[in-house]
Order: sequence, then structure tokens, then C-alpha cells
Amino acid sequence: MEIGNLGVTAARGFQAAGGSAGIKKNNTKDMALIYSTVPCVAAGTFTRNLVKAAPVKWDQHIVYDCPTAQAVVVNSGVANAATGRQGYENCEETAKEAAAVLQIPADSVLVASTGVIGQQIPTDKIKAGIHMLAPMLSDSKEAADIAAAAIMTTDTRSKQASVSIELGGKTVNIGGMCKGAGMIHPNMCTMLSFVTTDAAISKEMLQKALSGVVDDSYNMISVDGDTSTNDTCLVMANGLAGNPEITEENEDYRLFAEALFEVNRALAKMIAADGEGASRLFEVKVIHAASKEQAVTLSKAVVTSTLTKAAIFGRDANWGRILCAMGYSGAEFDPEKVDLFFKSAAGELQIVENGIAADYSEEEATRILSENAVTALVDIKMGEAEATAWGCDLTYDYVTINADYRS
Amino acid sequence: MEIGNLGVTAARGFQAAGGSAGIKKNNTKDMALIYSTVPCVAAGTFTRNLVKAAPVKWDQHIVYDCPTAQAVVVNSGVANAATGRQGYENCEETAKEAAAVLQIPADSVLVASTGVIGQQIPTDKIKAGIHMLAPMLSDSKEAADIAAAAIMTTDTRSKQASVSIELGGKTVNIGGMCKGAGMIHPNMCTMLSFVTTDAAISKEMLQKALSGVVDDSYNMISVDGDTSTNDTCLVMANGLAGNPEITEENEDYRLFAEALFEVNRALAKMIAADGEGASRLFEVKVIHAASKEQAVTLSKAVVTSTLTKAAIFGRDANWGRILCAMGYSGAEFDPEKVDLFFKSAAGELQIVENGIAADYSEEEATRILSENAVTALVDIKMGEAEATAWGCDLTYDYVTINADYRS
Repeated sequence: MEIGNLGVTAARGFQAAGGSAGIKKNNTKDMALIYSTVPCVAAGTFTRNLVKAAPVKWDQHIVYDCPTAQAVVVNSGVANAATGRQGYENCEETAKEAAAVLQIPADSVLVASTGVIGQQIPTDKIKAGIHMLAPMLSDSKEAADIAAAAIMTTDTRSKQASVSIELGGKTVNIGGMCKGAGMIHPNMCTMLSFVTTDAAISKEMLQKALSGVVDDSYNMISVDGDTSTNDTCLVMANGLAGNPEITEENEDYRLFAEALFEVNRALAKMIAADGEGASRLFEVKVIHAASKEQAVTLSKAVVTSTLTKAAIFGRDANWGRILCAMGYSGAEFDPEKVDLFFKSAAGELQIVENGIAADYSEEEATRILSENAVTALVDIKMGEAEATAWGCDLTYDYVTINADYRS
Repeated sequence: MEIGNLGVTAARGFQAAGGSAGIKKNNTKDMALIYSTVPCVAAGTFTRNLVKAAPVKWDQHIVYDCPTAQAVVVNSGVANAATGRQGYENCEETAKEAAAVLQIPADSVLVASTGVIGQQIPTDKIKAGIHMLAPMLSDSKEAADIAAAAIMTTDTRSKQASVSIELGGKTVNIGGMCKGAGMIHPNMCTMLSFVTTDAAISKEMLQKALSGVVDDSYNMISVDGDTSTNDTCLVMANGLAGNPEITEENEDYRLFAEALFEVNRALAKMIAADGEGASRLFEVKVIHAASKEQAVTLSKAVVTSTLTKAAIFGRDANWGRILCAMGYSGAEFDPEKVDLFFKSAAGELQIVENGIAADYSEEEATRILSENAVTALVDIKMGEAEATAWGCDLTYDYVTINADYRS
């Protein structure tokens, strides 16, 4: 399945726009609008953080209680989190304004925010932004690119992925964009991610497919171990592909779910690779685990370990930190059976055999760890389950970015 | 209760020595020896990391299975972790050598190691070190100071604390030293900590007192969220104070346990303040919690949050990150009832009232956060329990220290 870089306009009937509404300083792009020419079924997964931002609560209402959705209003700069009742009312006001401008029902407008916690969103600027963006809506790739750029915060590059599959003789397109670089340790879903598709699929099946996808994509990445208050992943399907509607777990459903997974995994890996200050993507794959849960626990503990991340930055094969992180993860395993390999485009090298140092060359290890993407492959020799987690290294720039983020 | 800075020789009958055995480069001190002129009862708590270093396993054998202990051999530079059967045999060989030199039983010799994971300790150097240190043993403060310096790794300063109390008309002394700056997120116990006392107390009561102490001291600190493979806290009591032996939970026991707690809390806070690269001590106190467990979970989540630690480095009152960390901690609370205050020697300021921003001055907040020690006081208005956790900020130097630790 080939992953393209088209974004939210890859699927028929979806339009996008992005621009500066003056929320951020210096005319930086800070608002995006996604619109479908026909009503969609929508699915979503949201942060499990007890402190949920107002837009998360609003979107949960739309996704769980309302039959269709047709637009998403996104702003960066201010997260609208820890903003109380006023914050929620501001979501409602935003949705109503977009509904009036786009001539759709207010309860079919999703909203999303990312940025500083604790400030109210400037509703005047956001309402003006909606009026500015609506006439610019376009199904072009350029429009998707601008929207993807407008939702960035500390991201250094925009993130888009797409795929096309055949269902019942019809071409079905899936495209998405996401943002996220810090406060990345999703639990249930992640950051902001918007995926659109022209597949014909029931709301129930769409939610089922999405829920099955996030556990192996967004929920397997970590930049800093901090689960955000705003994590949101939304998928909208408008049916314009004309495929036989998916209403049960048949072969079409499985193919669609796999395509949805590929797009979301690609987006998730982009977030990990663009982690705040990151200089390389760090992948941790645990194989031969007794259960999926065990493999997930171990791989996430390693990818989240501050000391391991610092060693990856230093291209230092400090494998003791990896074993140490596995040891405190809470998962049961036999440390004296662990094999560990480092892999990258430069080669593969066994570092640990049965829990103790293998006879390897430090120079060769450093050479392998100098690539842009490096993998730690851990074999715990217990069963057939496996899991892969993605993160990044810990660098000086991470500290720079986060020491005074609000200034 | 006044905390002094005497170390492991504060109590009668305890001697110490430290020096360079050539394990580290450049003649850096890397070995310490603690000795009691008479046999002691010993208690210990150890890492809960599944990957336990060989010295941890050896000490568990001595503390759990043997009636007395009389000496501790400590080395820095190499952790003797992930070293398999050979690593354990090296502990035994070390203990036997010390036993022969000091003319005590081998099963009364404790050992401890800290440093790089995955390398075997150089037993020849360590045995030569024992022969070098034994004749230097002294009950002077200088000897304790040198021993405290010899167990350091990335610590920037040595850590000692002491206290004296009256029990049954006799003066009882407790003194200790510890090391630790990175891989600090103790679970059950911590890093290396050695406490000596001349109290007369049964082995059972000593273990009970120590176990009660670690939960509110070492287990409440975090530098980087990484629980080490070597965490060890040992207490030895030789009875030379001549107090009525403590064999039950009477008033003497409670006073002794409190004094033991004060010494260990002082040592734990020194570790947090000297966290790798740290520029300030960060204290998080959660009050009015429904249970102690809840208060512990919340305070540790905040003190461990990478984003919060980076903000503390930047003297940035980014309170949203504190609420966010509380939200993903797993503890239940009402975000809309949370009050948050920042405190330091420069004053106290309310930042959050009932979950949203209070009307405070950012300049005043920065002034308060510029002190060497800062406290976040969180009131969750649910009950009467509380807990305090200690950590440090995340700085450029942390990355420098850990990017290539092994070189």
C-alpha cells in the first residue's frame, strides 16, 4: 500500500483553507478550515487526560450524539484548555459562526485548538477568520498544504499522508493531516489529527475502524511522556466514492481499516520524527513477547526513557539504559534472555545476547546510530506477540523550545 | 530536630575511608569502605526494577538471610548490572576479600556499585582497593567526607546528613551519605544511600523503621523518571549508644524512626537538588487530597513531567503543564476545583483558582520562580491527605551529561 503526501483534500468533496487570523504573532498562519460539500459520518478518539480541553468536550458531543459532521474549524496558538464554562461556550460560538457562513447545522461543525493552556480563545479573531477562510475553500493540494501548515505549533514541518484503495470497483481515497511536536504521549488518541475519506461507510463501522487504528499508531508514539489535554483524532467520511456502503466487518471493511491504519501510522511517525528538538526518529520494536500488552508496555517504556533518548542523541549504544527501562516498565520478563539489536539504514548489529554485552564494535554501533532513523529491536523470547513504538532523541533544542514556550 | 552534615562516622564505632582504586580515569576517587568495630543489625530497601544489579542481589541475601553486617564496600564507575552470574560471583569475591582483610565473616560484608551498566567490575582493582583502604579507616569527619566523595558519579557535590536524639537518657546518633544525580526515580528505595547509627535496636524494628521512611523520602524524588537497577538504601545499627534496645513500637521507636526519616529526607532532597544538570530544586506539594495514594500519584506526576521541568528551568509560570500532568496521572480529581500557588524564598503567589487562571502578575511569578528552590502547592479540596515530591528542572546540562555518558 503506497503512502502519498496528499492531505485532507485527497478525497472527493473535501475542501480546505488556511491563513492567519492574528491569533499568533507576526502574521503566522494560525487557522484552518476543512469542509465537505456533503454531510459526513464522523468518528473520533480523544485524550484520556482527566483535564479535557473545551474543544475535546465539544467534539465528543458532536461525534457521540449527532448523526453527521460537515466542517472542522481549527486554530493554533491557544489551546482553549483549563478555560471553564466560558471555554466551552466559545466552542459553541465558533461552531455557530461557521454554520451560518457555510449554511450547515451548528451541530455538524467540529472544532479543535492547540497552543497555550489556560487562555480563552479570541472569539472575535476566530469569527473573522472563518469569514476570511470560507471563500478560500478549495479542493486543491495547495489548499491542503496551507491548512496543514496553519495547524502547526512547534512543529518544524507540516504532516500529511494519503492512500487510495479499490472497494467494490470504486477508488476510495483517504487523506489526512496532523500536528504535534511536544506534549506528545497520546493515550487513546493524540494531538490533532484530521483524516478525510470519500468512502461510503456507516458511522458505527467508521468509529470501529478508527478505534482499532489508534492503538497501534498514535498511542505508540511519545516525545516527552506528557499526555495533552487536547489530543483529538477525527475522521470524516462523505461517501462520494460510491463504493458499496460498509456496514459490517466484511472484506471491504478490513481493506478500508488497513488503509486507514497506514495513513494514521504514517502521520504518527511524522509526529515522532518531528518531536520538539528531535534530530532523529527512534523506533523500538519488541518481538517474541508473551502478549501484545507486554510488548506495548516494554516498547513504550524504552521509547519514553529520558536517559535512553539522551543516549540516542549522543549516538551512544548505552544499552544498559534500555534494559533498565524495560526493567522498571512493570512488565514481567527474564532479563537474562533478552537479545538487543540496533538497526538503521547503515546496518544491523547485535549489542546484547541473553542479557549481557555481545562482542560488538562501539565504532560500528555509533555508525548505525548516526542515521536519521534508528531502531532498537528487542527479542524477549517468550511468545509470538510484538509491538512497535516511535519516539525521538532528547536534545538541547528540546530544552530551548520548552524553557519559555509562552514568550 | 536539627539536621547536621556529619556522615557515616557520626555514630559511635563507625569508621570510613575512601580513595582511588583506578576504576575511574584520572585518579578520581572511586572506592569507599564503611566499617563498624562491632557487628551491626542491618536493614535495607532495594530497587523494584526487574533488572537488579548483582550487588543488589548480594545485599538482599545479607540483609534478609544473615543476622549481622559489619562492613560495606562501595565502588563507583561500574554498576555491575546486567553482568550475569559472573557479576554475582564478583560480589562474593569482593566480600570475601574484605572479610579476610577486616577479619570478619564474609556474610557480614555488604557491597554496592554505581556507574555504567553492562560491564564487569575489575575485581583485581577492587581487591587492591580494599587493601589500600582498610588501614586508612577512621572515625573522623574527614574520613566520612572522603568516603562520601568517593561514591559520586555525575553528582556535583557529596551528600551527608546527621542527627542526634536522646533515647532512655543516652545520646543516639544517626548519620548517612548518599549519591545520585541521574537515573533517579526510585521505586521502593533509591540510588546508593548508607546510614549508620549507634542505636540499640532489633533487626526487625530497624527494617520496619527504614521501610516506613523510604516511601516519604527517596520514593518521592525524581530526576528523570528512570528507576535504576542499583537502587539501594542500607542502614546499620551497632548498639554502642547503650540505649535500652528497641524491640517494639514504643515511644523510643517512634522517636528513632522520626530521626531516621529526617536524615533520609534530607539526603533525598540533596539528590533531587543535585539532579543532573539541575539549576534548582523543584518541590511539589499536594494538599487536601482524598487519600495519601492520590496525593503521591499527583505530586510525582507533576515533578516528573518533562514539560513542567523545562518550564521551571525557564522560570516560566506555565501552570497549564502542571494541570495537564495531574490530568494524565491516573488519579481522579475535579480539575475545576484546583487551586495552584507558586512559593519560594521570594514570596508566594496564587496562579490558579478553581481550575482557571487567577489574576496574577507574570513578572511576580518569574521573580518567585527565580530562586534556587521553588514549590508548587496544589490544593485539590477533597480531603485531609497530602504528599510532597522533590525533583529538579530540565536543563541543557542534563542533555550534555547524558548524551555521551560512557565516554
